[in-house]
Amino acid sequence: MGGVEVGAKDFGSGQKRSGVSRGVAVLDFILRLVAIVATLASAIAMGTTNESLPFFTQFIRFRAKYNDLPTFTFFVVANSIVSAYLVLSLAFSIFHIIRSGGGQKSRVVLIFFDTGMLALLTAGASAAAAIVYLAHKGNTRTNWFAICQQYNSFCERISGSLIGSFGGIIVLILLILISAATLSRR
Amino acid sequence: MGGVEVGAKDFGSGQKRSGVSRGVAVLDFILRLVAIVATLASAIAMGTTNESLPFFTQFIRFRAKYNDLPTFTFFVVANSIVSAYLVLSLAFSIFHIIRSGGGQKSRVVLIFFDTGMLALLTAGASAAAAIVYLAHKGNTRTNWFAICQQYNSFCERISGSLIGSFGGIIVLILLILISAATLSRR
Repeated sequence: MGGVEVGAKDFGSGQKRSGVSRGVAVLDFILRLVAIVATLASAIAMGTTNESLPFFTQFIRFRAKYNDLPTFTFFVVANSIVSAYLVLSLAFSIFHIIRSGGGQKSRVVLIFFDTGMLALLTAGASAAAAIVYLAHKGNTRTNWFAICQQYNSFCERISGSLIGSFGGIIVLILLILISAATLSRR
Repeated sequence: MGGVEVGAKDFGSGQKRSGVSRGVAVLDFILRLVAIVATLASAIAMGTTNESLPFFTQFIRFRAKYNDLPTFTFFVVANSIVSAYLVLSLAFSIFHIIRSGGGQKSRVVLIFFDTGMLALLTAGASAAAAIVYLAHKGNTRTNWFAICQQYNSFCERISGSLIGSFGGIIVLILLILISAATLSRR
């Protein structure tokens, strides 16, 4: 029943819809580029974090690197994977720009992988945020002390690198919404 | 062009499609129930965590509660919000079972909110997981010591409460995939 109605409507305004589809496909492409830059910047900013304190004893050099904390390693890996996936997904995006009428199945596949990548990126970003919060504030109940007094530039760097990741999360949510809206319009 | 083809196909197999749609809508309903139970169980398991050690000094009683760590409070809040949202979304789900033909727009709305809730739940679960990992293993570089030797049952409880949350994440990803596939089929 619903199918017949949709078909009749499309028959009337197919040409206009195709134009809107193309515009949306271009927007999808641009948003993916933004997300690539954001996640890649996050991965690089975190991955190159490395601070040595200007004083050291005979046995210990005070150094802070991102991979001292496993969570930050996960953050870098998650951002890199999402970034690589987004580069690959550009091919689908270009396909949707060229063939703005078709590509129902490829859109569902994209929604599925976008959702998975959203979960991965959110996991990495929020796990890192939990540790960054701890590094800033510490926790008196568990005797975990804030390390940001000593490692100042380290802390600024790891805090800053979260921004790109959370930006990427918002863009991915938008991408899923756009794909869903495009699917529903036909 | 694509619209006409889809319309013609639906005209032939509209009845069968409607039956499949109804089955999918019922599956959607059941998955939502599963996710409600999982997230609610997580919230309750974490929210009621409270361990007092059998020894105490004159000034300090050694107690561990979930809200000693802000991340766990966030975990409980995130799980409760997602759980409450899922209860509300059951209304949409029932609407889709009854009117299996229609509801294009309500499906897009559902995908959007499901995606947002997926991000929220993943953020809560993985932030808590990062802290649970720290509680188990500690971190020698930052002098954060593992607290699980002392607070044994506390640690078991907070580890266990993560399970429901991660189960909920998987169910939400499935729900988004199902909604997208349903949208693409018309």
